[in-house]
Amino acid sequence: MPLVPYVPEEEATGEVRAVYDEILASRGLTRVPNFWRAIAHDPAYLRAEWEKLKAVMAERLLDRRTKEIIAVAVSATNNCDYCLHSHTDNLRAMGMTDAELVELLAVVDFFNGSNAVASGLKVDYEPPVSEGGPGPAAG
Amino acid sequence: MPLVPYVPEEEATGEVRAVYDEILASRGLTRVPNFWRAIAHDPAYLRAEWEKLKAVMAERLLDRRTKEIIAVAVSATNNCDYCLHSHTDNLRAMGMTDAELVELLAVVDFFNGSNAVASGLKVDYEPPVSEGGPGPAAG
Amino acid sequence: MPLVPYVPEEEATGEVRAVYDEILASRGLTRVPNFWRAIAHDPAYLRAEWEKLKAVMAERLLDRRTKEIIAVAVSATNNCDYCLHSHTDNLRAMGMTDAELVELLAVVDFFNGSNAVASGLKVDYEPPVSEGGPGPAAG
Amino acid sequence: MPLVPYVPEEEATGEVRAVYDEILASRGLTRVPNFWRAIAHDPAYLRAEWEKLKAVMAERLLDRRTKEIIAVAVSATNNCDYCLHSHTDNLRAMGMTDAELVELLAVVDFFNGSNAVASGLKVDYEPPVSEGGPGPAAG
Amino acid sequence: MPLVPYVPEEEATGEVRAVYDEILASRGLTRVPNFWRAIAHDPAYLRAEWEKLKAVMAERLLDRRTKEIIAVAVSATNNCDYCLHSHTDNLRAMGMTDAELVELLAVVDFFNGSNAVASGLKVDYEPPVSEGGPGPAAG
Amino acid sequence: MPLVPYVPEEEATGEVRAVYDEILASRGLTRVPNFWRAIAHDPAYLRAEWEKLKAVMAERLLDRRTKEIIAVAVSATNNCDYCLHSHTDNLRAMGMTDAELVELLAVVDFFNGSNAVASGLKVDYEPPVSEGGPGPAAG
Repeated sequence: MPLVPYVPEEEATGEVRAVYDEILASRGLTRVPNFWRAIAHDPAYLRAEWEKLKAVMAERLLDRRTKEIIAVAVSATNNCDYCLHSHTDNLRAMGMTDAELVELLAVVDFFNGSNAVASGLKVDYEPPVSEGGPGPAAG
Repeated sequence: MPLVPYVPEEEATGEVRAVYDEILASRGLTRVPNFWRAIAHDPAYLRAEWEKLKAVMAERLLDRRTKEIIAVAVSATNNCDYCLHSHTDNLRAMGMTDAELVELLAVVDFFNGSNAVASGLKVDYEPPVSEGGPGPAAG
Repeated sequence: MPLVPYVPEEEATGEVRAVYDEILASRGLTRVPNFWRAIAHDPAYLRAEWEKLKAVMAERLLDRRTKEIIAVAVSATNNCDYCLHSHTDNLRAMGMTDAELVELLAVVDFFNGSNAVASGLKVDYEPPVSEGGPGPAAG
Repeated sequence: MPLVPYVPEEEATGEVRAVYDEILASRGLTRVPNFWRAIAHDPAYLRAEWEKLKAVMAERLLDRRTKEIIAVAVSATNNCDYCLHSHTDNLRAMGMTDAELVELLAVVDFFNGSNAVASGLKVDYEPPVSEGGPGPAAG
Repeated sequence: MPLVPYVPEEEATGEVRAVYDEILASRGLTRVPNFWRAIAHDPAYLRAEWEKLKAVMAERLLDRRTKEIIAVAVSATNNCDYCLHSHTDNLRAMGMTDAELVELLAVVDFFNGSNAVASGLKVDYEPPVSEGGPGPAAG
Repeated sequence: MPLVPYVPEEEATGEVRAVYDEILASRGLTRVPNFWRAIAHDPAYLRAEWEKLKAVMAERLLDRRTKEIIAVAVSATNNCDYCLHSHTDNLRAMGMTDAELVELLAVVDFFNGSNAVASGLKVDYEPPVSEGGPGPAAG
């Protein structure tokens, strides 16, 4: 159960109504997702958050799928159930398979682990000294 | 300053020597990065960590660049200096520009923020109810 | 289900009994909240935690409502269900509305997001160079 | 050293120029803080982030000082140097003393600690059963 | 409900079959725990993760019980339900009592709290200046 | 540089003086560590924190070395420089070697990684179904 009631679509007016309509239109949804209905108690924040999502997720230099992958990586690190469901659903709709999803999480695993060691031992970074180009990341 | 001395290359023997040689060979490096030299005090862990890195970062279903992007997303969320340097350096070597890197962090920003709200308000997830396919993620 | 049974009030003796009685008296409760009943397996810790709570939440320079707001901000960042429920209930009892609670979480959202970018890009802080006094925080 | 160069004010054009001018005007600054100059490599994100900051930090139902306190609570929990400096500087400019700042951090301490225990023992929340109104938070 | 189906034991072949057999044999289990069945969609990662677990949890210089305690401390800090259950079950099987478990969590509480203050106030570390040997940790 | 000045020992009076004296006496220190001098701006919190440290770190059911190990595990997970230095120094004073410290961090690595996967894939926990007793943790 959420800590605030969801602002119902039929009661939405003004800025909330306007954002709800944009959300519905942007994806052909027939219902506004609960995240937006929860934050709609603060219309100025609702608007700013929606504008930021559009700006951030728009394909400019990185493609949409990569951005959904980043969303899952961050949400797994933070252990956010809602966001994990939402963004794995998005990736599923783009065709991501079970094997790809686990391969994604394997990378999330490795870096959550090695982050704690690199920070925990206070390892100094030095740029790689090599003869060649990029290869397997060495930590 | 690290909390343990780095195991010098010239003193490495046995399993440590074997892993060091693989690390050097894999990227044409002339020096083993400090992360590996720090954990070399535990040779069994050094070996397992190196095997896992190879398994996890190998291109199977996701490409290497996507995996480096995940590394940066996780490391920014955890605030790991060493890993941020290491993996942005890797992405730079693959041609990533300043604009791409900031666009990547913009996505990391959005989801670290929205994760805290979705969890903080305990919003229930419901699969999107729509008429169409994937579009901009609605939270 | 908790990972330890709650120490029942009718079985509490000694230090546990003393702390339970203080908890009940301090708020006119008729039942000791589960948090305290869970940690009562370690009476010395129970006592120290209760003393710290009293010291930390007492109104000295910051008022109680501000402290409950901080409790919610931290608990949302850490995704702690128990603490979110407990401290939003406390704020509700002080009259906090849905709109205020979402406005609170909006700030939590913004800084969880911008923290990850400021740390992720390793931005250097410099004190603001201005002609005037405080205004909107510039990040 | 930042991982991207700061976009210099004298080179800013278009959307970046417009946001820079708003930032300078909003606080009587003579220099754009580094956070904004770092993210300016992605002008759409820069704009959205600035609009969100204005929306989130504007005094609606919570006052500005409370919002700066939330900023510090979140930034301490996430260990973000830049944001800690920025928002304690803002609070200092509003008159916050050393004693108030430590009292603030004492609350941050308590809840980071108790969050880990409440989640770690998987304590069930039950609404307080009491005869009266709000008192010291019982965890 | 998991975000990927568990790979059933009766369908496991090749590397997955080999790792499953090792897991079953290592503890006299009659069923592969869900964690391993979830990640089995990526056989290379499954193998590497299993090898790392064996290397990391093997008794070399630290005993197994201490390692399970570390597992609980980390999992409580990260709020990971699965891992909390798994490793408190392991400790229970080794004889850990309710009182010991709460005493463990008390330490996790203290340091999650004091970490946030030490980082939040940016306290400088200086090695202790003393006349004698180790005693109660002073922060 | 800390965000508050350290309360000097020669200016300490009342409760602060009393706690400082206990800290010095408890370890034969000739100087109060900076952590305590930073929080001394709030004497009630200083006292409660010190009492909690004594309660939490006292040997009851877990020994002191195990508690210092937990301190390092939590501090590495949270990336707290001050606490990492302080508690690895304590462990060094108890004789911990480089190899033991890295073995400790290897466990911290593994669980920070596997926590993110178990939570990220939302794996359901089921108690192990086995014929025998405890063995290597199977995730």
